[in-house]
Amino acid sequence: MKILKMGMVGGGIGAFVGKVHRMGARMIGGIEVKAGCFNRDRRQNDEIGAKLGVAPSRRYASFEAMIAGESALPPEERVDFIAICTPNYLHYEEVKLALEAGFHVMDEKPMTMTVDEALELERLVKKTKRVFGLMHTYTGYPMVKLARDLVKSGEVGKVEKVVVEYPQGSFRKMDFTVPLDKRNKWKMNPKTTGESCCMGDIGVHAANMVEYVTGLEIREVLSDLHSFTPGIGRLEDDGDCLLRLSKGARGVLIASKIATGEENGFRFRVYGTKKGLFWQQESPNVLHVAAQREPEQIWKRGNPYVAEISPAAALASNTPSGHPEGYVAGFASIYRNFADTIRAREEGRRPTELELDFPGVREGIRGMRFIEAVLKSSRGGNAWTSV
Amino acid sequence: MKILKMGMVGGGIGAFVGKVHRMGARMIGGIEVKAGCFNRDRRQNDEIGAKLGVAPSRRYASFEAMIAGESALPPEERVDFIAICTPNYLHYEEVKLALEAGFHVMDEKPMTMTVDEALELERLVKKTKRVFGLMHTYTGYPMVKLARDLVKSGEVGKVEKVVVEYPQGSFRKMDFTVPLDKRNKWKMNPKTTGESCCMGDIGVHAANMVEYVTGLEIREVLSDLHSFTPGIGRLEDDGDCLLRLSKGARGVLIASKIATGEENGFRFRVYGTKKGLFWQQESPNVLHVAAQREPEQIWKRGNPYVAEISPAAALASNTPSGHPEGYVAGFASIYRNFADTIRAREEGRRPTELELDFPGVREGIRGMRFIEAVLKSSRGGNAWTSV
Amino acid sequence: MKILKMGMVGGGIGAFVGKVHRMGARMIGGIEVKAGCFNRDRRQNDEIGAKLGVAPSRRYASFEAMIAGESALPPEERVDFIAICTPNYLHYEEVKLALEAGFHVMDEKPMTMTVDEALELERLVKKTKRVFGLMHTYTGYPMVKLARDLVKSGEVGKVEKVVVEYPQGSFRKMDFTVPLDKRNKWKMNPKTTGESCCMGDIGVHAANMVEYVTGLEIREVLSDLHSFTPGIGRLEDDGDCLLRLSKGARGVLIASKIATGEENGFRFRVYGTKKGLFWQQESPNVLHVAAQREPEQIWKRGNPYVAEISPAAALASNTPSGHPEGYVAGFASIYRNFADTIRAREEGRRPTELELDFPGVREGIRGMRFIEAVLKSSRGGNAWTSV
Amino acid sequence: MKILKMGMVGGGIGAFVGKVHRMGARMIGGIEVKAGCFNRDRRQNDEIGAKLGVAPSRRYASFEAMIAGESALPPEERVDFIAICTPNYLHYEEVKLALEAGFHVMDEKPMTMTVDEALELERLVKKTKRVFGLMHTYTGYPMVKLARDLVKSGEVGKVEKVVVEYPQGSFRKMDFTVPLDKRNKWKMNPKTTGESCCMGDIGVHAANMVEYVTGLEIREVLSDLHSFTPGIGRLEDDGDCLLRLSKGARGVLIASKIATGEENGFRFRVYGTKKGLFWQQESPNVLHVAAQREPEQIWKRGNPYVAEISPAAALASNTPSGHPEGYVAGFASIYRNFADTIRAREEGRRPTELELDFPGVREGIRGMRFIEAVLKSSRGGNAWTSV
Repeated sequence: MKILKMGMVGGGIGAFVGKVHRMGARMIGGIEVKAGCFNRDRRQNDEIGAKLGVAPSRRYASFEAMIAGESALPPEERVDFIAICTPNYLHYEEVKLALEAGFHVMDEKPMTMTVDEALELERLVKKTKRVFGLMHTYTGYPMVKLARDLVKSGEVGKVEKVVVEYPQGSFRKMDFTVPLDKRNKWKMNPKTTGESCCMGDIGVHAANMVEYVTGLEIREVLSDLHSFTPGIGRLEDDGDCLLRLSKGARGVLIASKIATGEENGFRFRVYGTKKGLFWQQESPNVLHVAAQREPEQIWKRGNPYVAEISPAAALASNTPSGHPEGYVAGFASIYRNFADTIRAREEGRRPTELELDFPGVREGIRGMRFIEAVLKSSRGGNAWTSV
Repeated sequence: MKILKMGMVGGGIGAFVGKVHRMGARMIGGIEVKAGCFNRDRRQNDEIGAKLGVAPSRRYASFEAMIAGESALPPEERVDFIAICTPNYLHYEEVKLALEAGFHVMDEKPMTMTVDEALELERLVKKTKRVFGLMHTYTGYPMVKLARDLVKSGEVGKVEKVVVEYPQGSFRKMDFTVPLDKRNKWKMNPKTTGESCCMGDIGVHAANMVEYVTGLEIREVLSDLHSFTPGIGRLEDDGDCLLRLSKGARGVLIASKIATGEENGFRFRVYGTKKGLFWQQESPNVLHVAAQREPEQIWKRGNPYVAEISPAAALASNTPSGHPEGYVAGFASIYRNFADTIRAREEGRRPTELELDFPGVREGIRGMRFIEAVLKSSRGGNAWTSV
Repeated sequence: MKILKMGMVGGGIGAFVGKVHRMGARMIGGIEVKAGCFNRDRRQNDEIGAKLGVAPSRRYASFEAMIAGESALPPEERVDFIAICTPNYLHYEEVKLALEAGFHVMDEKPMTMTVDEALELERLVKKTKRVFGLMHTYTGYPMVKLARDLVKSGEVGKVEKVVVEYPQGSFRKMDFTVPLDKRNKWKMNPKTTGESCCMGDIGVHAANMVEYVTGLEIREVLSDLHSFTPGIGRLEDDGDCLLRLSKGARGVLIASKIATGEENGFRFRVYGTKKGLFWQQESPNVLHVAAQREPEQIWKRGNPYVAEISPAAALASNTPSGHPEGYVAGFASIYRNFADTIRAREEGRRPTELELDFPGVREGIRGMRFIEAVLKSSRGGNAWTSV
Repeated sequence: MKILKMGMVGGGIGAFVGKVHRMGARMIGGIEVKAGCFNRDRRQNDEIGAKLGVAPSRRYASFEAMIAGESALPPEERVDFIAICTPNYLHYEEVKLALEAGFHVMDEKPMTMTVDEALELERLVKKTKRVFGLMHTYTGYPMVKLARDLVKSGEVGKVEKVVVEYPQGSFRKMDFTVPLDKRNKWKMNPKTTGESCCMGDIGVHAANMVEYVTGLEIREVLSDLHSFTPGIGRLEDDGDCLLRLSKGARGVLIASKIATGEENGFRFRVYGTKKGLFWQQESPNVLHVAAQREPEQIWKRGNPYVAEISPAAALASNTPSGHPEGYVAGFASIYRNFADTIRAREEGRRPTELELDFPGVREGIRGMRFIEAVLKSSRGGNAWTSV
């Protein structure tokens, strides 16, 4: 198995998600961090680069410098792909530059700031024939894959109703005496985060989850967005959506940054004609499966009965049952399939379905469409709006 | 303490809720079942009457006969109140007759078939000066009372968001080969159950819960009702509502009869500026209280720290902490306060706030308005509709 | 169905368990409290008698007066049975007197103060042909009956290991500045409670549970008892036992009054060669059933799949699934079967197995033997001791 | 921060724990796998070495070859430490050889086969001044560290009672038609696993946990070991121990391989005079803290209120609260402190208390003494035996 060399932009000291990208990628083997522009601050950039064993010459001062520097290296030395862990407003330009320079890309979600940018990147991915991954990490959890495969196999029957929620209470921790723009940095500024705060950050995970697990498409949304946090301006910190999905299914999607006492209470319930499924992110190693005339079942990660229905869940598991796996393993799962797809391409063979099981261009565009539709519906008097 | 004599209509063999009324009323002491028209079938009526120790002469063949028979008894012998446990379409006439004959009434919810009927009964209650109770049993649970009192005391801060759900999977158990009208009897027939099935049966509990716990009013609803069960006709078996409450709070209310695998998954989450509250009916003895900078708390029924904040919760508890109480105790709690209010009235004293803590006319009208608004919104293109 | 008339000794104002006896007995119908000596204090005795609708003439000043007074009534008026809810040291004499006077008896556990007394009562029960019930309430829970029937049916395989615990933290609430004998009244005085505090009060429930669920006998115990509470003297407030059961099964039994933070954390796990069972008293409506190669199952009270395996569980259920039942229903369940057995006897027919499913003489003797063996083992250097 | 180079013996294809060592070590950064003798089979060894980026010349055919090969490299190239992930019977010789050759060592538990071997290694560690880590992974979990620090801080009061359990059902999955020695390889053969199966494999984790969390020593055990699995010979697959700890605390320790339906149900409850603590391995991100007069608390990993009491818990956390971490993170936590201690030594400075917070020689000897005492007690008629 070829060791893939990874470059990273963002994810420096003080950042959250870039570190998790690295932990996920490194955990499974087969990927090594070889270059990076982690922090703009040179001293911090050096510190983190050293810790990661990145050679001093490959601790770059800017994204552009990294692209230039790596491109100048002999092909067998330069990084194979670049992980983009910067604020949303930078994604589009960075992905573009990376693809054009011939690198595969792992992009933190949301893909871009607008649907148009996402479509532009879709064209570029096709043109450059590079592999593009989008870090919708929660679909990397094994029990989410099992849920999808239980639906796919017909076990659940026809899916008729979905309830998906992503409540957080994080904005309740803010110090209201500090001016807003100094509080939570880029995530609360429309210029850097986009027109949506809560839906763009976490609602989009919920939408992605619904489509992944049910195999249905969200066709229309009717949304009501709210801004409770003092000084949050036009950004929303809470929102509720009614959903119309393909094949006549209905649903509700709730996301919140002001759900006091919640941490990452991401959860879904899927009700089919035969079975109901329940999963929550904070207890990710189990999936509840319930029918009407039978005892409720708790399916547990890592068991042969899971693997039988869901080879994808088995592949995404790193340890036997009874050993809890967490959030980092979700990243690892997506990196594994992303990396195997790159390897397949480089070996000139068609990636398998299991290898291709990671979010990419399609999920990115769907996410941007969802965000735009939700904003439009709420601003337009809560009318049904196509996604 | 005066022993109150109870009469009952409905609740015979094969019925569900009337039996629970009796268990709740009898459990606490101070109430005795002395008359009844439980089943139309004479043999069944005798059987259940005998089991309850009801004298043969007071096992009536019809509601009218019970009213006539009891009215003919000397005041100290006749029943003090009548519990009405018949299908919805009979409530209005029976309550009316009972009030006019001078009996206090405990009515199973929903109060009537229409808002107009409910308003008519309100006038009658005022006129007859009788005590009217409405069995919204879930607000009888001690930890629900604690939740209300935590909100009232200011502990929760300003309530900004509410999520309340009542998912059931019961309609999934139906035998689809049996014609609809033979399947679930009166609950699936608009003539006997009213224009709403799911919202009228359980959504109305959720609405009542929200108003009880938060002290806010649901001002407007935007609803989307669905009919998934084959042959259910114009009745809905599932529905989602966006809520606008007083004081700027927002919320979501979900009710379903097709939520496969759910039994009575009634639950609410209330998010205030300081605390979040979480309760679920299937684990009714605990209330989760969470803030952002502290460990989550599990408050448990029957403890002194509960009684300190909520004397109502303490009063509604029958056993010390650690001894689970259930659904029947919810009925007992409402009967206790209902009966004490009757006693207070008969003693000529003003009932205390604790005694008056049971659902009645106001809750009945609010419920009927909620049902009507939800139907109107869904039928009218999912527009915001006043409650 | 004949209404049985119940007399009660103990269970007055300030008492705990007698009230629950009454709630359980009254809840189900078919039993009425007609006489009582609840409190020694006349005013309190009157107050509670009035609340229960007990005629003034049948509110007795002493147990002896009740026996005499009731015996003097015509047979069709006098009470059918007497519930004994006094401190342990009174049980033997009161049961004896009641049986000899011809009354059936429901005795609160433990049966007596010594094995010899229990054996003496066994002889008396046989001689008088009266029905004797012992309130080991926890075996009245439906899901405990399901557990027993899953074992009986062979579903669990051969039971090899049992872990049963009854941790309480109640003694942590005591005010250590108050002299011991004024703290917790009779339960902490060997003269009134017997030689064992923790094992006699709650350990004996755990032992009874093990034998009930597994159908095995505890053959030998090796125990280690502890006294942590200041001033508790020779009574123990905590204890651990190793168990050797019939058919080669092994187990552990733990009981504690100093398990800080626990309320009534009674729970058991039974491991058979095919399945494991897990139940806990504070969530009594579910039973977890787990095997090694299948998803874990949550069996829920009130479902047809429960009734199929366990008619006893179905009989002990008062409401459909999804409506939680609690501690009071456990008492109701035992009173139902006890009362039906009395009725069968009075009708001259042999009670069915379902009717006979309530604890009685056998369980009382087993309990006293368990307590004696545990004390002997711990005092004798932690040696294996026959039960 | 210096990147440490890691060598590994064992942990090849088909092995379980070695892979987790690598995932834990790689996840956090600062450690790289540079050499290994993973599988005896050359092809497998090459395959895994390649995946890990280990140079072909450093994929060794034997442990001895690795020691020789690495020792021959220039100091700045050779590995800094060796992780020993082979069956128990090889630990002693391999640790010895590695220490004598000047390498630091991370040893999978149990440390050796006997107490004498463990004492011998203690002398050698002192003599060679190398860092020795022992992978008792569960004490690496942040919430376990919090539990320890809550005890240490006095929050829990005096610890009086401990219940610790490690139930697994793994032996129930075995195919009884296959001869024992072909079933589960080395873990069921006394020559390779030692004289104890269940206690040596998992009971020793429970003993380690008790001492880590409470800061007390297990002074005496009284144990009863059992062999239920057909053909398991003299090895035990289940066992119960009564514990006498320092300062008068008492406890129970239960471990099992035949606890049908359990996966890794490792859990502990610690009862102090002020608080009770409850933790379970399968939900490792929360610690329940309960007192008698307050709501129970759920402390959640990653929060500032955890860091305040337990800097060690904060250090062991890799992601903010709400993102579950699992078993691999437990390994990471131990590797982090182990590596930082090596760095401190190489920098010539005294490691901090936080850096030294990983299991080592002392825990290894305690573990071996525990295993020996448990075997002696059970074989000697269940007598109290010093640890």
